[in-house]
Amino acid sequence: MHRKCVVAFGGGKTDPIDENRDPKDLLGGKGAGLVEMTALGISVPPGFVITTDVCRDYYRRKHLSQVSWEQVREGIVFIERHMGSRFGDANNPLLVSVRSGARASMPGMMDTVLNVGLNDVTVKGLANRTKNERFALDTYRRFIAMYGSIVMGVERGRFEDALKQLKAEVGAKEDVDLGEGAMRELVARYKIIIRQEIGDDLPQDPWEQLKMAINAVFTSWYGDRAVTYRRLNGIPDDWGTAVNVVAMVFGNMGERSGTGVMFTKNPATGEPAHMGEFLFGAQGEDVVAGIRTPFPLSVLAERLPEVHEELMRTVKVLEKYYRDMLDLEFTIQEGKLFMLQVRVGKRTGIAAVRIAIDLHKKANLISKEEAVARIRPEDLSQYLYPIFDPAEREKHRVIGKGLPAGPGAATGQIALTPERAVEMKAEGKAVILVRQETSPDDIHGMHASEGFLTARGGMTSHAAVVARQMGKVCVAGCEAVSVDLKSGAVLIGNISFAEGDFLSIDGFTGEVFAGKVPVIDSEVIQVIQGRIDRRDSEKYQRFALILAWADDIRRLRVRANADLPDQAAIARGFGAEGIGLCRTEHMFFANDRIQIMQNMILARSLEEREGLLERLLPLQKADFIGLYVAMGSHPVTIRLLDPPLHEFLPKREELIDEIARLETQLQMGYYVESARQEKAEAVMSKRKLLERVEELHEANPMLGMRGCRLGIMMPEITRMQVRAIIQAACDVRRTKGIKVVPEIMVPLVGSVGEMRAQKQLVAETAEAELRLCGMALKFVIGTMIELPRAAMTADSIAKEAEFFSFGTNDLTQTTFGFSRDDAARFIDFYLRRKDSCPACLSEDVDWKETRCRNCETAISERAENILGQDPFAVLDQEGVGEMMKIAIERGRKTRPKIKLGICGEHGGEPASIEFCHRLDLDYVSCSPYRVPIARLAAAQAVIRVRNKSRVH
Amino acid sequence: MHRKCVVAFGGGKTDPIDENRDPKDLLGGKGAGLVEMTALGISVPPGFVITTDVCRDYYRRKHLSQVSWEQVREGIVFIERHMGSRFGDANNPLLVSVRSGARASMPGMMDTVLNVGLNDVTVKGLANRTKNERFALDTYRRFIAMYGSIVMGVERGRFEDALKQLKAEVGAKEDVDLGEGAMRELVARYKIIIRQEIGDDLPQDPWEQLKMAINAVFTSWYGDRAVTYRRLNGIPDDWGTAVNVVAMVFGNMGERSGTGVMFTKNPATGEPAHMGEFLFGAQGEDVVAGIRTPFPLSVLAERLPEVHEELMRTVKVLEKYYRDMLDLEFTIQEGKLFMLQVRVGKRTGIAAVRIAIDLHKKANLISKEEAVARIRPEDLSQYLYPIFDPAEREKHRVIGKGLPAGPGAATGQIALTPERAVEMKAEGKAVILVRQETSPDDIHGMHASEGFLTARGGMTSHAAVVARQMGKVCVAGCEAVSVDLKSGAVLIGNISFAEGDFLSIDGFTGEVFAGKVPVIDSEVIQVIQGRIDRRDSEKYQRFALILAWADDIRRLRVRANADLPDQAAIARGFGAEGIGLCRTEHMFFANDRIQIMQNMILARSLEEREGLLERLLPLQKADFIGLYVAMGSHPVTIRLLDPPLHEFLPKREELIDEIARLETQLQMGYYVESARQEKAEAVMSKRKLLERVEELHEANPMLGMRGCRLGIMMPEITRMQVRAIIQAACDVRRTKGIKVVPEIMVPLVGSVGEMRAQKQLVAETAEAELRLCGMALKFVIGTMIELPRAAMTADSIAKEAEFFSFGTNDLTQTTFGFSRDDAARFIDFYLRRKDSCPACLSEDVDWKETRCRNCETAISERAENILGQDPFAVLDQEGVGEMMKIAIERGRKTRPKIKLGICGEHGGEPASIEFCHRLDLDYVSCSPYRVPIARLAAAQAVIRVRNKSRVH
Repeated sequence: MHRKCVVAFGGGKTDPIDENRDPKDLLGGKGAGLVEMTALGISVPPGFVITTDVCRDYYRRKHLSQVSWEQVREGIVFIERHMGSRFGDANNPLLVSVRSGARASMPGMMDTVLNVGLNDVTVKGLANRTKNERFALDTYRRFIAMYGSIVMGVERGRFEDALKQLKAEVGAKEDVDLGEGAMRELVARYKIIIRQEIGDDLPQDPWEQLKMAINAVFTSWYGDRAVTYRRLNGIPDDWGTAVNVVAMVFGNMGERSGTGVMFTKNPATGEPAHMGEFLFGAQGEDVVAGIRTPFPLSVLAERLPEVHEELMRTVKVLEKYYRDMLDLEFTIQEGKLFMLQVRVGKRTGIAAVRIAIDLHKKANLISKEEAVARIRPEDLSQYLYPIFDPAEREKHRVIGKGLPAGPGAATGQIALTPERAVEMKAEGKAVILVRQETSPDDIHGMHASEGFLTARGGMTSHAAVVARQMGKVCVAGCEAVSVDLKSGAVLIGNISFAEGDFLSIDGFTGEVFAGKVPVIDSEVIQVIQGRIDRRDSEKYQRFALILAWADDIRRLRVRANADLPDQAAIARGFGAEGIGLCRTEHMFFANDRIQIMQNMILARSLEEREGLLERLLPLQKADFIGLYVAMGSHPVTIRLLDPPLHEFLPKREELIDEIARLETQLQMGYYVESARQEKAEAVMSKRKLLERVEELHEANPMLGMRGCRLGIMMPEITRMQVRAIIQAACDVRRTKGIKVVPEIMVPLVGSVGEMRAQKQLVAETAEAELRLCGMALKFVIGTMIELPRAAMTADSIAKEAEFFSFGTNDLTQTTFGFSRDDAARFIDFYLRRKDSCPACLSEDVDWKETRCRNCETAISERAENILGQDPFAVLDQEGVGEMMKIAIERGRKTRPKIKLGICGEHGGEPASIEFCHRLDLDYVSCSPYRVPIARLAAAQAVIRVRNKSRVH
Repeated sequence: MHRKCVVAFGGGKTDPIDENRDPKDLLGGKGAGLVEMTALGISVPPGFVITTDVCRDYYRRKHLSQVSWEQVREGIVFIERHMGSRFGDANNPLLVSVRSGARASMPGMMDTVLNVGLNDVTVKGLANRTKNERFALDTYRRFIAMYGSIVMGVERGRFEDALKQLKAEVGAKEDVDLGEGAMRELVARYKIIIRQEIGDDLPQDPWEQLKMAINAVFTSWYGDRAVTYRRLNGIPDDWGTAVNVVAMVFGNMGERSGTGVMFTKNPATGEPAHMGEFLFGAQGEDVVAGIRTPFPLSVLAERLPEVHEELMRTVKVLEKYYRDMLDLEFTIQEGKLFMLQVRVGKRTGIAAVRIAIDLHKKANLISKEEAVARIRPEDLSQYLYPIFDPAEREKHRVIGKGLPAGPGAATGQIALTPERAVEMKAEGKAVILVRQETSPDDIHGMHASEGFLTARGGMTSHAAVVARQMGKVCVAGCEAVSVDLKSGAVLIGNISFAEGDFLSIDGFTGEVFAGKVPVIDSEVIQVIQGRIDRRDSEKYQRFALILAWADDIRRLRVRANADLPDQAAIARGFGAEGIGLCRTEHMFFANDRIQIMQNMILARSLEEREGLLERLLPLQKADFIGLYVAMGSHPVTIRLLDPPLHEFLPKREELIDEIARLETQLQMGYYVESARQEKAEAVMSKRKLLERVEELHEANPMLGMRGCRLGIMMPEITRMQVRAIIQAACDVRRTKGIKVVPEIMVPLVGSVGEMRAQKQLVAETAEAELRLCGMALKFVIGTMIELPRAAMTADSIAKEAEFFSFGTNDLTQTTFGFSRDDAARFIDFYLRRKDSCPACLSEDVDWKETRCRNCETAISERAENILGQDPFAVLDQEGVGEMMKIAIERGRKTRPKIKLGICGEHGGEPASIEFCHRLDLDYVSCSPYRVPIARLAAAQAVIRVRNKSRVH
């Protein structure tokens, strides 16, 4: 086996790697960063990366191959050479850290073992070399606890309890208060714990330690937390993790030692300021674990100015190299700086926009196009996050202040455990999860909450990172908070709260309020609605700028799906270039209309029906006027009535139940004579209603009498709608001078015959109405392509239809044979099958032991997911997309310039938008709030297609 | 305009016609026959045909064009030249008949006017030339009545009443008893009737008569009867009718004159015997109208032997020319024979087979291939018509005997009017329509009946023709029958019956029985079931022979859809070459299983469910054994469970109703203490059931949790089914030595992931079961292609699936977005839109006046039908067929030799079978009773594709 299993770095040199491989894919993010920093001449401890290929191989063979192990041994020799120490050496022992590092950052989800190589002998050598016995013993006890819990499986709490107890015994407040003797005692007690729990001793052979630690890291790839995290973040299992084996440097070696992390810009707002956090005399995980609240970098600058300066120089080199905001980890060992990690920093959407703009405008490190490409379209939605109503907010007292770690404003009821959060969410409550600190075990509870408030931890703490990623509101490290799980209460300042009490947190400012503070629209929305002047809102300006850049790049037009004038106005504010779909039925559901609609449906004669339609006409017309006015000269596509008529009638089951009860009561003589008559009449009229409901009842309404089938069977409805469309257009033209060109859309066409019939009716009615109005006015008639047969026969349909709009919701339903109302049950399973037990479908599976915890079935082979994505969320390119391709090709054969759009939910989903761009559609149409996202995604589609490669 | 509007024939010569036009298309059936007979040198009166092009032109311009009229005038000159008489001449007047004649025969559905050219002057000329004043007057009064009713619109009954009255006045029994004076009186009275009714006189100008008669024939193309007939027979409106203007010859000129019709073979059985019917002293319609019962041809041979001989010679010439059984009309004028019509005779399916076989084997006029091509596949179903149980039949007395005019045996309740027949049918009754004679106005009632019994009319009467076409049982001309509409009773022999009484008729023998005679299986089925020896059944032998010829020609294999062993045995008897679809759910619906199935669905734990499935296993296994044994070594395709589980549970609405009633009763203290407990428990258990029903309830079950989705979500069901399939195959192999290769079919696959998951489960289970059985046995795993996405991704799916079977029922549903359960409502309208009012959709439209009789709307333009055919009956080649093409192309890309079949209803429909042949499928699968039809259709597909032209 000639494969390179290990890539070494140190002393400014690195092993070469295969040019065809993305370094991150092969080495993981952390490993790639170490290799790159080394190559840039930055101070990095020597080490090597065991590649992700080895991880995949490990899972195939269930152990580390001989070849890999030999290369690991060679890697250690490489480190020894650079460090001048030897692994397991009694006098000058080399210690290494063994860390996970996948392609995508999975903070805290996998295992790390530090200080590997320590044993009863080498600890003495360490003490001698550093002339610091306490340090050596501290390091040893840390190693025993870490190795004991992670590799050997002892519960971590056992070590923590022992530490606490000893501190109590000796009267120490902090860990640093423990002296050399106490540390020696701790080492002894930790060893006893291991023997008690496992019945075996800590291995003294450093090579065994190393091998087991590497195995543990690989195994943690399928740990419960990692599996859950990947599932939530859509990270494929087969990426695997790399393992970074790096010479230990010690932040706990004394006063001039320490460890820290930093963001090169503010990850919440994008403000251009270094945000660092630092702990003296601490090792690795101490900062991010949020157990101690760290110092800001200014303290470092004060105490170790030359180290601070070197750090700043390093940051400059790295920023220029990576051309982005970075997330760094470093350790200072006796005044010498070592960089341990560099990665592009996670950030809020709001920060992402500001950083991208600044990188172009201020630093000139990236082009406008790159700036646009760097924003995840979903990030823009953070600009639309609600905020607290300023007036209401003033009435509430700030009871605490922490770090603004996740933007937005959230109000809800307190939960103190993740379990309770999940329960409360299920009860329909809005939840604020309040924790001393959060850990990866809390993830489910965090999902269920609107926001998190933690007592400890900084901007890079678990709670903060997860919040920004999930788009949750977070206030972290609020020291005023003190959680008492036993009593189920939390003290904030001097106010005590119980679970279920209301609390409000502001993720923009870090402020905490008692009670409910009403939440209102975001600043951007207030600008759009004219409540704030745009010149007064920097947020809006940045939001608008990045979109303006996107607009210069994109080819696809972006329209909105809007049914009512106020929605249309919002959409226009977000930059919608027209309405792609007005669902006219939504107008009928309004309170003042549903009764007329019901009577219309119940009407027995054409005449009666037409009379009632006449009453609906002015109402529809008024709505259309509103839409036209909101959109100005932009096109407005109006879809004729689509849903089955029984949707407008009362529910069948309720009527059956009511009638049965009333009838039984009547039969049993429940009512007095005078009431009886009335009740009997009620039964009669309900029976009549039920009769009609039964008449209209369908076994599969989705495939029944709806869409153009309605318009063909009840032409009077189509006629009324067309008259309202035309009258409104004439009105708007006459009174406002707006030239509307209504696009009238026939739904659910499956054959050219339907299209021809409806087109003729629409055209005749429209022309007659125009004659009555005495105006000439252009209108166009097109159709939805939302049935497979429409796609297959698009060439014929295009003879009649002047435009196609892909109704991908329905098209997905019929292409897959999935009813949107019913399919969630199995689609849900299809998406998580590989995480489920094949026998009982439970997800409570122990993947390390490959055994179902629910039904005890042993799982021989892990299943594949059946679907990669929910086709109702992300357009299914393989099936539905093929159908669209065929429709476009055939449609254009007949009518080369046919206008093409999409108006299903997919019109606002970035991957689907890219697909639409590649299909050369004219526009996408989506819900108003997704218009900005679609504008950005449409620009990114251009960039991606141009680059023919994936953008970061 | 250079178009030839008129084609003349006479004196052995005919005008040439465009070689590119099918003579029948251009001249109609009757016109083409006249032209062809003239060319063959057969005695035909001279005349000309106004082409169908003129008819279409007439409907475009709403009148006869000048050019056409000029050519008509030239045509009359041509006839005058050949007849030596002149149109409108006072001394030697030419009279002509004006008859309709469309491409397809539409017997009695359009109008005919005879004796055109008669007026007060020419009638004298006719009398003088024929020296027969009574004849001339008889002819004149016939003309007045015919012209008056058909062209001028007087109700025909008015003339009939006048005739009856006069006969009563002069004491005449038959028309022939009326003398010259009476005839003259009749002419006078008829004229008065016209003046009274219309306020105008009979036109005396022969040219005006002619033009109006031609217009009347054209107009009758859109007469109500013709429109209904075309709708029922699928004849396009735009074919139009030709008009035949032919010199009159007179069957009513005296004793040596007459008119007759004949079939050259028995149209009911195909027996090689001339079947003629003849009336002396009668004109045209008298025979077919069924008003007088005619003589057989033997009477002609006796009375006019030389004419009979000439007729026989003519028949020979024509039979050789047309190479088929013919339907002829002729008139004898004073001993001279004139042929008036020749056409290929309509026949029963049973006759069709016999005639085709005889034409090949006996007459050697056609090849085997032609014989096969000539049978309409549907005709074969007549071999499967039920007959009377011979034992039961013996117990019933024959109370009357008529002509066996439509094969089969029918028993039902008497209806005396078509209206009553329709009502009774709607009440769910089997109806025997008993009429003095039927007329085209009766068609709807005939449709509603199982069979017809008429008092008058022969094998060619309206009732007989319609019966054979509709596949109804008919006994015609049963003189023992006398219908009295006033009293609502019918006398048969000396037994009086009322409407609603039971009657039985035998369409094979013409016998009539009182009461219900139980009906049993056809002879063919009895042979197949071994109840009759095949050597004893000529019917079976012919049936088998034509199918054997078909088998030699066809390429497509024919399988059956059969779920139970007895169905499989029948299918095998019909020649099925395997089972293409066994719907395993049908096995679960059986009485002994539904309860276990219900409990299985209600089970809360996997364990409980598996226990119940274990009980279903032996039942399924037994059925599979039955199927395998019935099919011998032929392949058996078994589909895994398909329908949603709630189909096996009680109905939701019924449960809601029951619970509401019970609860109300309990609330109101209806039950005594002791019963209350029990009722309360009943409510509880019903509530529990309802809960589960609600859980399983789906908004669109067709698009919900069914098909492979079930098998994936409840793998234990799949496992049980596969075990039963494999166990049964092992058993049959072991005990009977039959090598079964089960084809296991996964339903409703939409993505390769589903297929892979199910395939793996099936294969694992099957292999484990085989190990248990200790046998090696081949099995194959394939899928239905019944979702558009399966077609689109057939290349991926074919990686896993070893065969595809097109489930065109579901594929039609999803491609069109039509729920089979709900779509009838609009599909029905889509198929008849052109016959409906565009405003109220009523079919009660007066198409002559283009006005809706229901809502009074004037109809400016006739709409088109939206669909040409019901896509659930005939495969939609344009949409669903395209989908199949794509699936085949993509499937073969991955697996070039993939086995392909179809198992939707379309697998038994001839046009769809031809399509499947062209798609190069391996087999079609259809219901057992359609297997013979499919075998024949598959052979015809080969012939058609080979000929690349339509077969007659």
